[in-house]
Order: sequence, then structure tokens, then C-alpha cells
Amino acid sequence: MQNQIRPMDALKTAMADAAAAMERELDRLIPRGDGHEKRLYDAMRYASLEGGKRLRPFLVLESASLFGVPRARALRAAAAIEFVHCYSLVHDDLPAMDDDDLRRGRPTTHKKYDDATAILAGDALLTLAFEVLAHPDTHPDGSVRAELVAALAAGAGAAGMVGGQMFDLEAEKHGRTYGLEDITRLQSMKTGRLIGFSCQAGAILGQATPAQRRALDRYADALGLAFQIADDLLDAEGDEALVGKKVGKDAAAGKATFITYLGLDGARRRAQALAAEAAAHLDLFAVKAQILSNVAQFVVERRT
Amino acid sequence: MQNQIRPMDALKTAMADAAAAMERELDRLIPRGDGHEKRLYDAMRYASLEGGKRLRPFLVLESASLFGVPRARALRAAAAIEFVHCYSLVHDDLPAMDDDDLRRGRPTTHKKYDDATAILAGDALLTLAFEVLAHPDTHPDGSVRAELVAALAAGAGAAGMVGGQMFDLEAEKHGRTYGLEDITRLQSMKTGRLIGFSCQAGAILGQATPAQRRALDRYADALGLAFQIADDLLDAEGDEALVGKKVGKDAAAGKATFITYLGLDGARRRAQALAAEAAAHLDLFAVKAQILSNVAQFVVERRT
Repeated sequence: MQNQIRPMDALKTAMADAAAAMERELDRLIPRGDGHEKRLYDAMRYASLEGGKRLRPFLVLESASLFGVPRARALRAAAAIEFVHCYSLVHDDLPAMDDDDLRRGRPTTHKKYDDATAILAGDALLTLAFEVLAHPDTHPDGSVRAELVAALAAGAGAAGMVGGQMFDLEAEKHGRTYGLEDITRLQSMKTGRLIGFSCQAGAILGQATPAQRRALDRYADALGLAFQIADDLLDAEGDEALVGKKVGKDAAAGKATFITYLGLDGARRRAQALAAEAAAHLDLFAVKAQILSNVAQFVVERRT
Repeated sequence: MQNQIRPMDALKTAMADAAAAMERELDRLIPRGDGHEKRLYDAMRYASLEGGKRLRPFLVLESASLFGVPRARALRAAAAIEFVHCYSLVHDDLPAMDDDDLRRGRPTTHKKYDDATAILAGDALLTLAFEVLAHPDTHPDGSVRAELVAALAAGAGAAGMVGGQMFDLEAEKHGRTYGLEDITRLQSMKTGRLIGFSCQAGAILGQATPAQRRALDRYADALGLAFQIADDLLDAEGDEALVGKKVGKDAAAGKATFITYLGLDGARRRAQALAAEAAAHLDLFAVKAQILSNVAQFVVERRT
């Protein structure tokens, strides 16, 4: 059993180290305001710092390390995706959207500040993400920077995350019930596309071959779906104190999830199968991708 | 007198032609959704199409024409700035922000749809702006595309438009009263920076010389300030039916504007002086910049 435990411990250490490096990078990249707009910078910092597992940044850093991308460049791309992730949480938590008061065990940004400040802080974080990617420090080749911008925008916009959020709201607010195929597409848009970008970013920065890119895309697709099924399981079975946000929301809202169609056991089995599939897509990177393989397992085993 | 009228008529024709071309480009660039997220695309279209004078796009097209930039490229950059402008109106009109029901004589996006859809449509329009700029069709040189992205993000984000909006809300919601210097800085952030980007975009696409860029920057600074003073005059004296939105809001809110410090006559004189200053900065382009010179005059004379 010890051999099975050790890689997961190593992964957790690597993730904690990356999260600490990420924290420093995010702190460095968000200016500290001192004018009349200081409240905006404070809210941007509140929404971004001291938060979360930093899974998406970790995927950027690990995928970049496959191609020997300098750490400083990878950290900038990782910060960009985290800014987008944080902005999306700030806007999703608003009263007009999911109306959540608690996030990562703290008041949500609009509860800590106010709705207007939260809307603006989200807008500014999204904008900052593109500013960071487009800066020459991210990569000396402008076409690489532009490709990162295009890929992030495609994943974050109407065809990706924001479209997925609309798709989801249509079920909640307009009483639509989705089948398994719809839920799969919804989740692929809402979370899968940005997990995909996180894995692509390393390949773009590292100017990877088409075969390497395809392998990472397939890994990301399986990982993203596994992640979402695990999320549904956490909502159904998780401990609110550990998870850091309300649980049982899907059932309370009468919302169809993967569990509605697969059941608890079926969902667990499907998540495990996807984690194994994700890892298998990394075979061409051999032992270099060991940590990314373990991430897939981590994602389905997590309790928070 | 006829010689003074004719250039303004020519300008209005040129602006109308550009607005029509812009309408087609915006229509082409916003996808038509057919999935469960269709409502998002509908709201994006509602917020962007059939609207406004398209002043910012016109500035992009005219500044690009100084450097012989192909029209198709200039139209893409013009669309990007217009998407950002439209997103900012959608978010500013929300109940949590300025709470406006009417925009361009029509219900605002959140009145036509709902708050959640308006938040998401704004987010998606902002994201689309960067996607359009980063696409190879905008310019074959990746470093030009990345520079456009960086410049738009700098103008639209916390140091620019969004920061200016926060600055403004601090006065409204937290009872701060600003002096003339603060108001000038606020307006430079809130509207000036994106007018600045509109003029820079042509120079970036046209790979202009530093002297040419400086001239356009100074033109844009004077134009932006003239524009804002004219906006305050319209709010104080304008006809709601012509303006297409509520007027008299500043006075009703007890808000300090340029008029508070300059008076009506002083504000009119200052706007005229700025229009003349803006035009003077274009001297090095000679007759090629005649239309841009006239834009400055147009901006202070407009009644809508």
C-alpha cells in the first residue's frame, strides 16, 4: 500500500509548493491602488489571494515543465488562468446569479464589499488576465503571446465558460431539465474548456508538436469531466466545513447532475475510469508526466 | 458660412458610412447561438447591434487610414473597442451600478433580458474583444496583435475604464466630492483611456513612428476631455428624446462635474479650446488628418 500512497503525498507537496509560488506571482501582478479607486484593487486582491487549490495554475506549470518552459513565463500564464477563474467565481456568486455568501470558507466578494465593486473587480481581473498574457515577459515571440490570448478567450467566452454558465442558468431559472448528453456538454463548456486551456498553455509556451498538443487536449478532456463528476459527488456527499462552500445545493434545487443519471456508485466508477483514461493519454511523455498522471487521480479522490 | 458647414456634413456622411460598415462587422463577429446558451448570444447582439454613433470605431478606422492599414484589419480592431464599449454600458446600467432602464432610446440589456444574462453578456463581449484582436486576421505579425491586446487591456482595466468607474462610484455611493483635478483624472480613466486606445490602434496596426504615435496620443487626450465636458453639458442641457437616455442625472445626484467648477459658459469655452488643441496635434499628418480634426469639432457640437 505504501507505494500507492507515496505518489499522492509527493503530488500534494508539489501542489502546495506551486500554490505558494502562485500566491507570490498573483500578489506581484495585481497593483496596489492608492487613488480613489483603491477599493477596486482591494477587491481584486481579496478575490484572488489566499484562495483555493490552484489546480488550474498547477496544470499550466506541470504542462509547461514537460517542454522545459522557463518557470517565470509559466507562472505568468498560470496567473492569467487563475485571474479568469477567480473573476468567474466573483460574478457567479452575485445575487443575480448563484447568490452565494460563502466561498472558500470566507464571505464572497460582494458580501465583503458590495455588488457593484464585485462586478467591477471581476471585470478588472478578466481584463488583467489578457494584459498579463500579452506582455513581452510572457514570451519573447509575439505570435506565442497572441496564441495564448486567443486560446484563453476561446475557452473563457461565449463558446466556453460564460456560455456554459448561461446554459446552466437556463436550467435553474427557466425550468429546463437536461439529459446526460446536455449535462456533459454544459460541463465541458463551463469547466472543461478552461482546464483544457490550462494544459494547452504549457504546450503553446513550449511550442509543442501537434501530437503532443493532441495528447494534452485528450488528457484535459478526460480530466475536466472527472473533475466535474467529482464536484457533483462532493455536492451530494461532501462535508461543508471541508468543502468551504454550501453543499447539497443541486438536490435542493432539483437540478439534474451526473449523479441523477449515473447514481452515486456509477458516478464514482465513471470518475475513476476517466482518471485512468486521462493518465493513459500521457503515455507519450513517459515518466516526465508522472505528476500530471497523479493529478487525475487526485481530482477524483479529493474531499475539498 | 457655407465653408464651415460643409466639412461637418462630410464628416457626418463619413461617420454614417463607417457606422454601417461597423454594424456589418459586429454582426459577422458575434456568433449566432443555437444551443441552450442561445439567450447569451441574443443578449450580446442586443447590446452591440443597432447602437450609437460608433465614435470609437470611427477613430480606429480614421487613425488606421493615416497609415494605409487595410480596411479589413482596421474593422476588426474597431469591432474590439466597440465590444468593450458595449460591455461597459451593459454592466454600468445594472441595478447594482447606475441602475438605468433606458439606453439609446431602448430598454437596457438587463431590462430586456435579466440581470444574470446582462452580467454574462458583458463578460462575453469583453472576452470576444480580445479574441478578435488576437486572431491572425487582425494582423499577420503576432507582436502587433499582442500589442493591441496589451493596449486595450491597459485602457479597459483597473488602471483605465474599470478603475474610473470605481472612482466614480466612490463619489456616488460613499459621498465623496471631487475637485476639478480629481474629476479630470476620473474622466481620463473612465472614457479618455479607451478613446486613446481607439486612436492608438491605427498607429499600432500601421506600425507608426514614435512621433506619429505621440501626436495621436495628444490628440486623443484633448479629444477625450472635450468629449467628456460635452457629455456633462448634454446631461445639463440636453434633450432626453435626442440623447436617448435620462438627462439631468448629475444635478439630481448632486454630483460634481466639469460644469460645477467651470460653469456652463466656461465648460463650453473649454470644450472648444480642447477641440482646437486636438486638431493642432494632427498638424504633422497635414491634410490626411482632416477628418480626425473635424471629429474634435463634432464632439463638442453634438446634440446627442
